[in-house]
Amino acid sequence: MIKVGVVGYGTIGKRVVDASIDSGFNVAIAVRRYTPKLDIAIEKKYPLYSMTGDIGIDVCGDFDDFIKDCDAIVDCTSKNVPVENFPRYKNVKVILEGGEKHSLTNFSFSSLGNYEEGVNKAKARVVSCNTTSLVRTLSPLKNYIGNVFVTLIRRSVDPWDIKGGPINAIVPVLKVPSHHGPDLNTVLPDINIQTMAVKVPTTLAHLHIVRAKLKTEMKKEDVRDIFENTPRIKVLSGYKSTADVIEHFRDLGRKRCDMQEAVIFEESINVESGKAYWIHVVHQESIVVPENIDCIKAMFGEKDKWKAIYETDKTLGIEKKRECYK
Amino acid sequence: MIKVGVVGYGTIGKRVVDASIDSGFNVAIAVRRYTPKLDIAIEKKYPLYSMTGDIGIDVCGDFDDFIKDCDAIVDCTSKNVPVENFPRYKNVKVILEGGEKHSLTNFSFSSLGNYEEGVNKAKARVVSCNTTSLVRTLSPLKNYIGNVFVTLIRRSVDPWDIKGGPINAIVPVLKVPSHHGPDLNTVLPDINIQTMAVKVPTTLAHLHIVRAKLKTEMKKEDVRDIFENTPRIKVLSGYKSTADVIEHFRDLGRKRCDMQEAVIFEESINVESGKAYWIHVVHQESIVVPENIDCIKAMFGEKDKWKAIYETDKTLGIEKKRECYK
Amino acid sequence: MIKVGVVGYGTIGKRVVDASIDSGFNVAIAVRRYTPKLDIAIEKKYPLYSMTGDIGIDVCGDFDDFIKDCDAIVDCTSKNVPVENFPRYKNVKVILEGGEKHSLTNFSFSSLGNYEEGVNKAKARVVSCNTTSLVRTLSPLKNYIGNVFVTLIRRSVDPWDIKGGPINAIVPVLKVPSHHGPDLNTVLPDINIQTMAVKVPTTLAHLHIVRAKLKTEMKKEDVRDIFENTPRIKVLSGYKSTADVIEHFRDLGRKRCDMQEAVIFEESINVESGKAYWIHVVHQESIVVPENIDCIKAMFGEKDKWKAIYETDKTLGIEKKRECYK
Amino acid sequence: MIKVGVVGYGTIGKRVVDASIDSGFNVAIAVRRYTPKLDIAIEKKYPLYSMTGDIGIDVCGDFDDFIKDCDAIVDCTSKNVPVENFPRYKNVKVILEGGEKHSLTNFSFSSLGNYEEGVNKAKARVVSCNTTSLVRTLSPLKNYIGNVFVTLIRRSVDPWDIKGGPINAIVPVLKVPSHHGPDLNTVLPDINIQTMAVKVPTTLAHLHIVRAKLKTEMKKEDVRDIFENTPRIKVLSGYKSTADVIEHFRDLGRKRCDMQEAVIFEESINVESGKAYWIHVVHQESIVVPENIDCIKAMFGEKDKWKAIYETDKTLGIEKKRECYK
Repeated sequence: MIKVGVVGYGTIGKRVVDASIDSGFNVAIAVRRYTPKLDIAIEKKYPLYSMTGDIGIDVCGDFDDFIKDCDAIVDCTSKNVPVENFPRYKNVKVILEGGEKHSLTNFSFSSLGNYEEGVNKAKARVVSCNTTSLVRTLSPLKNYIGNVFVTLIRRSVDPWDIKGGPINAIVPVLKVPSHHGPDLNTVLPDINIQTMAVKVPTTLAHLHIVRAKLKTEMKKEDVRDIFENTPRIKVLSGYKSTADVIEHFRDLGRKRCDMQEAVIFEESINVESGKAYWIHVVHQESIVVPENIDCIKAMFGEKDKWKAIYETDKTLGIEKKRECYK
Repeated sequence: MIKVGVVGYGTIGKRVVDASIDSGFNVAIAVRRYTPKLDIAIEKKYPLYSMTGDIGIDVCGDFDDFIKDCDAIVDCTSKNVPVENFPRYKNVKVILEGGEKHSLTNFSFSSLGNYEEGVNKAKARVVSCNTTSLVRTLSPLKNYIGNVFVTLIRRSVDPWDIKGGPINAIVPVLKVPSHHGPDLNTVLPDINIQTMAVKVPTTLAHLHIVRAKLKTEMKKEDVRDIFENTPRIKVLSGYKSTADVIEHFRDLGRKRCDMQEAVIFEESINVESGKAYWIHVVHQESIVVPENIDCIKAMFGEKDKWKAIYETDKTLGIEKKRECYK
Repeated sequence: MIKVGVVGYGTIGKRVVDASIDSGFNVAIAVRRYTPKLDIAIEKKYPLYSMTGDIGIDVCGDFDDFIKDCDAIVDCTSKNVPVENFPRYKNVKVILEGGEKHSLTNFSFSSLGNYEEGVNKAKARVVSCNTTSLVRTLSPLKNYIGNVFVTLIRRSVDPWDIKGGPINAIVPVLKVPSHHGPDLNTVLPDINIQTMAVKVPTTLAHLHIVRAKLKTEMKKEDVRDIFENTPRIKVLSGYKSTADVIEHFRDLGRKRCDMQEAVIFEESINVESGKAYWIHVVHQESIVVPENIDCIKAMFGEKDKWKAIYETDKTLGIEKKRECYK
Repeated sequence: MIKVGVVGYGTIGKRVVDASIDSGFNVAIAVRRYTPKLDIAIEKKYPLYSMTGDIGIDVCGDFDDFIKDCDAIVDCTSKNVPVENFPRYKNVKVILEGGEKHSLTNFSFSSLGNYEEGVNKAKARVVSCNTTSLVRTLSPLKNYIGNVFVTLIRRSVDPWDIKGGPINAIVPVLKVPSHHGPDLNTVLPDINIQTMAVKVPTTLAHLHIVRAKLKTEMKKEDVRDIFENTPRIKVLSGYKSTADVIEHFRDLGRKRCDMQEAVIFEESINVESGKAYWIHVVHQESIVVPENIDCIKAMFGEKDKWKAIYETDKTLGIEKKRECYK
């Protein structure tokens, strides 16, 4: 059984741990310090390793032991830590997250965009939440669209984070266009895309405003149908904001109220003067989790893209009808 | 089997429905209009009734049918609707929520405070989220404390609500002291309490700052131990804000990330110069749910307070050790 | 001397009153009720009229008296009130604000776009804050640009407003494209523009992300220079958000910290692959004030557009070098 | 003429500079780096000094020159910088701000509380915004009150600050009681006070909820009258929140919309069962400015407390009737 070593037990780490277990992998966790967040992992008796010596709890070993004991490592730490860790990951498959540079692994993965390229890869970067949502929505349209322009209205911090602001301001990304467009091109190099971004005082989710020039004539119903038939996209009607979208997922009983799908407001889908428009919502905390699981599968040799994706979705409880997976 | 009719399928209503089903009651739901929130109830085939004629979905009957078909009604609507509905509730047990006036039912219920008085009652009001948290924390201390002063820092709206503000202000309740103190006295008439309140721009939870004069000498450890041994109170150590407290309950996998316990920051518990202090967090969306279930049990004749409370807690997954229930 | 009657003493009304006085007009104010906000107008002995009978303060007359006593009326009330008032405005020049429909006056005014058409007009609508900022920035570029696409990230309420939300959500305008594009066309009919909009939890200012296709080759320095030389646009370097932009205007000592210019982040101005990009900030409370004053001047026969605009700017303390006014 | 050297040109520094000039002092400014905020100081040709060598603008000298050139230094930097600077301040009067420890200067100053003790002092700490508001409101009541309990609901960051959070949480001070009570005792040692505090997601102002046991019988009108007759306290009626209070000061045309008075909601003043209650608002950015100016006057020998305070208030435009100053 594959042993997945998750580095960091924060927003992404804890979710990758849960999804790995649900997917039938063994797990191990490496952390730098004890915080009360770890209590749940301790209670569930997950094997813990310390990256920094004695951290006041029982551990199975140090970081070298951890690397040796694992078959694949998913480094979910942030802010320069993965860059430092990376050279130590020898003789082990490695997944980095979307905050890291493409050049570190020289391969960026996102299931609907380029699953096949991940098969048997040793190192991969699973792209960020924003890029993941763009890969999912633009992949099924890629033959129909020309230039794409996206404005990203980003939540500023995760819900649990009390340190980061702003409290009452809009903070634009002043590098124009923003880096999100080029990031998509690491997975889908043929899409002509520019992006701009702002940060706003909310914690729930990002929201993307997309405008895509059409190369073929399409009706808005065509666009909607394509989204309806694409895995990991959910089209919701009657919703008004990121808040009632998230509430819907709370009501569905999802663990941690997670929303692993990209959610499109049905009313926002439109086609006018040769351009398609839509607005989608991106749950920064959980949307990349399915792609992380897929990536492990690909790296360990699973060649059937749609089988891998479908099974991940079934495991996570987000599957659509089987015929959408093709 | 008792049939519980829930009026309104909003924040409280949907939770009372779920908890009623988990507690082995039958349910029915009466609503005034269709909104996408109802889809989950429709999918689960809960019996729906319309309070306003044709609402575009299949229903089992009108509001009179609903009242006739139910054994107990929990009216979870808001803003004057319960007052209008109340005279129509004949030949049926009725529970109103804490937003309504005590004088409507002339009996206010909160399990730890006055379960016994609810036994076989026909009409009851289950007190509000804020009052519920005060009943839970002050009941076990009532023999040790004199005057109590509480400042309530209230979340302004529920997380899904995008209409209400403020976005960037503190809004004090200018009626000083506030109505929350007298409301506690509808359940615990002997506690000498004054309260003041402000509304702040957050959606997650209320927070109470409590100062209680001690009649007996106590150490802070004594206060903490009492809380540790009281049902529906959770003492957490290492947490810093309403945000990481709520995140903890997300990680626990609670449905809708609910936090039905009153949560006390362990570090805030203190005794100094004859006064006890603590800070607790109140989840406005879910804290009253256990008390609603208890109230139904009491109204239908369950005389054993601690048995009722314990079983409710077990059903809801929030039980403590059996010996705490006494 | 022209007597300007301002209806409503809220966000826009109080500013139009102050700017009218500074511009040498007489003023009168009509209100529907007394609120403490009026105290300042009372103290300054501005002539007050009541639209609703006795409102507990001394007034000069009723609404009919007001209409009779004024030469021009600027109706700064909101939400359907101007529509109701409009038929009563006989024998008087009338200005409505941008919240009203173009069809009411059949003429929409914005100084840099179409001052000349306002000369001697009897009725006009001064366009909204968002549209005003677009008229100012797109007018000087109109010969160089083709299709324009704008994303408006809107503040949700004014700073003093504690009723409106959202507190923690992003609320998209689901009518796609939004109405803001067509609104610009009421002033500048030849610009091919589409817009999309979201509302976010901040009170300070709107922010626009603009992408304009270029018909001519331009460098980013060209775009910047055009903005630098256009009245009522301020290019700021070294600023990061709506918050430090507003703080800059506080430090400048502007009355009410107002920012009557459209402010462009210099770092955001860019030209890439034949498209110009920039991000500007719109102070919803005050940006339309200069245009209201200009509109009065035009309606009363001032034919010299640039003289009118320059003098307004000098009066309001926002003038640029004289040679920018042409 | 006294030369006041202000260290740091941030929230407090820039205001102390302006008030010093208005009070007839010479000023000099020492900074660690250039930011666009400095442009206004450069434009006004204030003498600038660099604390860190070449900072890319013309300066009059280094930090040693600055210390030598000034008669009094007001250190308005934050986070450990004043502690480091302090030993260098030789042969010069020094004022530190309320973020610093009392033990550094061994003397804490707040005009209404202990002006006299500041006369001819060499080093002083002007207490923080929160403590200043408590000194102002409790000083005139000190003969009538016993135990005082205050809950401070604090704004989290200044309006221009986009880095600090929380965005959607309430963050309690878990050290209970909080340090604010003891801080008041550095100025008014005889007041028996405890305080507790939370931080909330707003930028405008702090709000204090005060409950004071009365030693004498008083009516609420007595309490109000005392506040009405105390300098630097403003009692406002008809206001509902920190937002409309701040808006009032914008309308008054105060520079930077500052509110140098402690503002009490008149409706919140109450006396019940031997306790006085009120709620006041504290403008963290500007409330300490008058006290800084007074402190300079005292340190340079002005013995007449009420003359000093009155003249400061007149200079700043916040004076009450002359007979309040006694």
